[in-house]
Amino acid sequence: MDKKVSRIAVLTSGGDSPGMNAAIRAVVRTGNYYGLEVYGIMRGYQGLLEDDIYRMDNRSVANIIQRGGTILKTARCKEFRTPEGRKKAYDNLKARNIDGLVIIGGDGSFRGAVEFSREFDIACIGLAGTIDKDIQGTDFTIGFDTAVNTAVQAIDKIRDTMDAHDRIFIIEVMGRDAGYIALHSGIATGAENILIPEQKTDIEALVASLQEKERRKKLVNLIVVAEGDEFGGANEVARVIKERMPQAEARVAILGHIQRGGAPTCLDRLIASRMGYHAVECLIQGRRNVFVGIMNNKMNYVPLEKVGKKKGTINEEWMKIVKILAS
Amino acid sequence: MDKKVSRIAVLTSGGDSPGMNAAIRAVVRTGNYYGLEVYGIMRGYQGLLEDDIYRMDNRSVANIIQRGGTILKTARCKEFRTPEGRKKAYDNLKARNIDGLVIIGGDGSFRGAVEFSREFDIACIGLAGTIDKDIQGTDFTIGFDTAVNTAVQAIDKIRDTMDAHDRIFIIEVMGRDAGYIALHSGIATGAENILIPEQKTDIEALVASLQEKERRKKLVNLIVVAEGDEFGGANEVARVIKERMPQAEARVAILGHIQRGGAPTCLDRLIASRMGYHAVECLIQGRRNVFVGIMNNKMNYVPLEKVGKKKGTINEEWMKIVKILAS
Amino acid sequence: MDKKVSRIAVLTSGGDSPGMNAAIRAVVRTGNYYGLEVYGIMRGYQGLLEDDIYRMDNRSVANIIQRGGTILKTARCKEFRTPEGRKKAYDNLKARNIDGLVIIGGDGSFRGAVEFSREFDIACIGLAGTIDKDIQGTDFTIGFDTAVNTAVQAIDKIRDTMDAHDRIFIIEVMGRDAGYIALHSGIATGAENILIPEQKTDIEALVASLQEKERRKKLVNLIVVAEGDEFGGANEVARVIKERMPQAEARVAILGHIQRGGAPTCLDRLIASRMGYHAVECLIQGRRNVFVGIMNNKMNYVPLEKVGKKKGTINEEWMKIVKILAS
Amino acid sequence: MDKKVSRIAVLTSGGDSPGMNAAIRAVVRTGNYYGLEVYGIMRGYQGLLEDDIYRMDNRSVANIIQRGGTILKTARCKEFRTPEGRKKAYDNLKARNIDGLVIIGGDGSFRGAVEFSREFDIACIGLAGTIDKDIQGTDFTIGFDTAVNTAVQAIDKIRDTMDAHDRIFIIEVMGRDAGYIALHSGIATGAENILIPEQKTDIEALVASLQEKERRKKLVNLIVVAEGDEFGGANEVARVIKERMPQAEARVAILGHIQRGGAPTCLDRLIASRMGYHAVECLIQGRRNVFVGIMNNKMNYVPLEKVGKKKGTINEEWMKIVKILAS
Repeated sequence: MDKKVSRIAVLTSGGDSPGMNAAIRAVVRTGNYYGLEVYGIMRGYQGLLEDDIYRMDNRSVANIIQRGGTILKTARCKEFRTPEGRKKAYDNLKARNIDGLVIIGGDGSFRGAVEFSREFDIACIGLAGTIDKDIQGTDFTIGFDTAVNTAVQAIDKIRDTMDAHDRIFIIEVMGRDAGYIALHSGIATGAENILIPEQKTDIEALVASLQEKERRKKLVNLIVVAEGDEFGGANEVARVIKERMPQAEARVAILGHIQRGGAPTCLDRLIASRMGYHAVECLIQGRRNVFVGIMNNKMNYVPLEKVGKKKGTINEEWMKIVKILAS
Repeated sequence: MDKKVSRIAVLTSGGDSPGMNAAIRAVVRTGNYYGLEVYGIMRGYQGLLEDDIYRMDNRSVANIIQRGGTILKTARCKEFRTPEGRKKAYDNLKARNIDGLVIIGGDGSFRGAVEFSREFDIACIGLAGTIDKDIQGTDFTIGFDTAVNTAVQAIDKIRDTMDAHDRIFIIEVMGRDAGYIALHSGIATGAENILIPEQKTDIEALVASLQEKERRKKLVNLIVVAEGDEFGGANEVARVIKERMPQAEARVAILGHIQRGGAPTCLDRLIASRMGYHAVECLIQGRRNVFVGIMNNKMNYVPLEKVGKKKGTINEEWMKIVKILAS
Repeated sequence: MDKKVSRIAVLTSGGDSPGMNAAIRAVVRTGNYYGLEVYGIMRGYQGLLEDDIYRMDNRSVANIIQRGGTILKTARCKEFRTPEGRKKAYDNLKARNIDGLVIIGGDGSFRGAVEFSREFDIACIGLAGTIDKDIQGTDFTIGFDTAVNTAVQAIDKIRDTMDAHDRIFIIEVMGRDAGYIALHSGIATGAENILIPEQKTDIEALVASLQEKERRKKLVNLIVVAEGDEFGGANEVARVIKERMPQAEARVAILGHIQRGGAPTCLDRLIASRMGYHAVECLIQGRRNVFVGIMNNKMNYVPLEKVGKKKGTINEEWMKIVKILAS
Repeated sequence: MDKKVSRIAVLTSGGDSPGMNAAIRAVVRTGNYYGLEVYGIMRGYQGLLEDDIYRMDNRSVANIIQRGGTILKTARCKEFRTPEGRKKAYDNLKARNIDGLVIIGGDGSFRGAVEFSREFDIACIGLAGTIDKDIQGTDFTIGFDTAVNTAVQAIDKIRDTMDAHDRIFIIEVMGRDAGYIALHSGIATGAENILIPEQKTDIEALVASLQEKERRKKLVNLIVVAEGDEFGGANEVARVIKERMPQAEARVAILGHIQRGGAPTCLDRLIASRMGYHAVECLIQGRRNVFVGIMNNKMNYVPLEKVGKKKGTINEEWMKIVKILAS
């Protein structure tokens, strides 16, 4: 085999997501299997700049496949956006003869890599590590399945108390630009309403449906809202409901950061393992600056500079199913 | 056996808590075992006033021991605080010859029962159903163990992402008057600081310790706050920290209503079953207007009018352990 | 819309799987939404023969989307394999003017339906409800994702004790004809060896690798075996290992029926909801005797008589990944 | 303070149990807090003999409070039962000037310590680390609460499939000499029968009750059996039932080693932290060869040689409750 790289490094960047450790493990073990030297970079680009880099053997990734978070930690790094910063990063890699870099993170993390790979002779591979599932070129992102199951389990619990009290509950899940977590967790928990950034919220129709239920004395209602909903999140929805229906008992729950942690699901461990393996295969085969996704159960390679946020579109089929099943 | 009661009813009142269904099941099955007729009252005192009462056989409580919430639902009821309300309640019970009543709820629910039993010939038995563990006369309240384990699991997840980012996290758990959930979940998750209503929060010392960590570049810190902490809850703590340490990354997570739901733990199912069984035994033995608690693993019977909120005291031993172990 | 059916019934058949309740809910609510009368049949074909059939409105499927098992129960039924049995079944449907039937179960359940639909004027729709994922024409079966996550969580727990003792563990998961649960759960838990029916077990190579580890004093090893592995299941594997390596500590764990139960995962709730919705759409559109699967995220309709067990093939890519990552 | 010891070591021994890591953490941090040098010994007495001992600072126990298993690993060690073995152990401790030893394990582990402390000048402190709860002198053992909740969650899952099929299920839980796990998990899951070592199994009465149910066509029945039940475990119970009731569908599930692993519950983390803290306090105060238990929520110190297996007695109150509630 004609090895195109001999030493590679891996980092995690941006918001952490469950399954990042499984991806790190796959990169390290595949690299070592093929005789490459593998390095881990702490705290994303920040550690790359600060030369916080260490050698990883197979034991260093033992017993992490089931852990949430990332053993390499993650951070934001403004300095990497400057040419000086990137030069420093390059020098740290070159000092170790590292010529391949695997970046596990969101689309923001890839933009830095694109600049970097244009300026310097480092082959960059991007893997989608984000709970938001809002990355082009892949059906799966590492962490989404875990996050949405965490949301579902939390909403199941809240439903117990909602039903006990016959209340309205407005539950906010993560998703600044994309409604995937809200849509999936809302359907899975039988939510009556799902408010997502991809769709204009018809607050009047929502209030009217609640008032109709109030008239029939059946005012139990679960509303799942993406944090990035254009109407303004759970607190804003609650404010309007309380204003318009002062007798109603409406409660807000913001699930927050629990959605980022926890042991990854089977699916997240599998796709992370598969993507991590293929990232190294790519480097060995001499691919440069590609994003490694999975589409229709096949690997999908996209030039890194073409990978952006997935433009949310309303899935009309699901919206119809929501409407029918919540009746 | 000289049966002092022949027909009994059970209701759940106040905030719901996991394990209430196990208690209802125990009341119903023990009652039926002893040949009493057992009735369920929907939505606490509200359903009692509205005559929302139905007969319960053993099948009606099949397969509920593992469910969160309460199949009898719960509600607040202002009208029961009036003599007219209580008269209506009495008439509804008497119309069915019900002469014993089991109330599963918090100390507020017991106050209504005390008035009621003074005015009318109904034997009332109180069982502690609250996640807050703030009731006198018992080591356990139904729901506390589940709530605190839910909090622990949620904080474990947040710790994954906290560690990945090296952040300060301020997590608010339930407990308006009592710090039990905060204290137990904080110790169990290795929190550096635990802020509870029973103790004055020394915000200056807290900020100083964070600043010291910041100087040593070790600024990962978990703070667990009871919602009723006198300093003002997680958002207020975060506000001060951000004001005083503008560079620090501090995040807030308010666990909220997930703490009320979910399948009860083994312990909550056991104590609920045991309390429910003894509630009926009490009625059969002719006890009236008692609270049925468990102390030092023995049943503890207290006149219902003497049962109030447990006055929180600082457990000095635990406070010392927290300080030592979080170092 | 030209309604081809006016009354429909739904049943669950064969081994139960988590998510069946979500599918029942979707069938019932979609049917009611379109103005059909919907009936539930208890205990599969057995209840159909015994006329154990009842009307289902939207409330009858409230709060079940998150429950394991099946509210319609399931059973095996030999009598339905006879012409007389099927005649009785038909009479019971016709007495209620039911002309559409949704069968949620495995490939064995579909074979009965194929016979039935040939003999009588009942439109049958099949949905894949099985934890084994071994049905042609669909990427997903209802229950697989939950079962495999249950297996993963159980193996994670066993790994704690395995690591504490430095032991060999041989864990048997479900899968009589198909190795999907073993393969997915084995990869996700970092198993060193995965034994599946689709592949001949090289027991000599396995023993040799364990002996090599024994020599290096690194004898911790996780072996995941499908119950239908041709070599003979976990106990047989353990017997050979103990015979050949009498000093080694080898333990067996057979996960068993826990894999069939529990709250379904988000994914299983989604696919069950989607399949249930489309089953009714099919009936309304006049489709008859089709299987409703999902392939490449699109609905896939296959004549029911063509749907058999998926022939297991070895996924060479995954086998390579297993070998590399477990090193 | 007059420090009686200056260097201490901690080990885990016997079967592992969830919460051992929390206890190790407490010993290490309390020791370091008081200025002692703390050492960890790998694999119990085996590592002590093999001089597998290393220094532990506070960071070495960071982020382990929530982990199952034991980071110090555990093993059985025959050689420690010999005077020569114990001499070697002593030499290894003395070479480091270690004069205090904390043993976390079951009663078998304490017996070794008693011999050891008689022969040599090492202060030994025993903490009850076992899922079986069968140790005298303490209401709690580290790991029991987690194990019993794991059993409850597994049985909940099996109940889903049991109810779907109307079957008899015979579930075997851990407990060779003690029925605590069976009793607690059986009550909490509404088991109809609970078979424990402390009580003679009346198999005839059991079969008769099942036959009565069979006659009434209500043959769903959950039997929880302790592995050490004198009648012979789940398989033996199933054999008799199948022999006597050939038509009945009886299934066996042996929960096995999942009961040893998993993240510890809040309670197990708390008692482990408290016991670990007090173990070091004991050493500092000059106590020697004591067992540190908790009774009636107070610390209970017992001479180590007096601590044996708790003699199981039948709790008549619970047995009555089981009978009444399972009806």
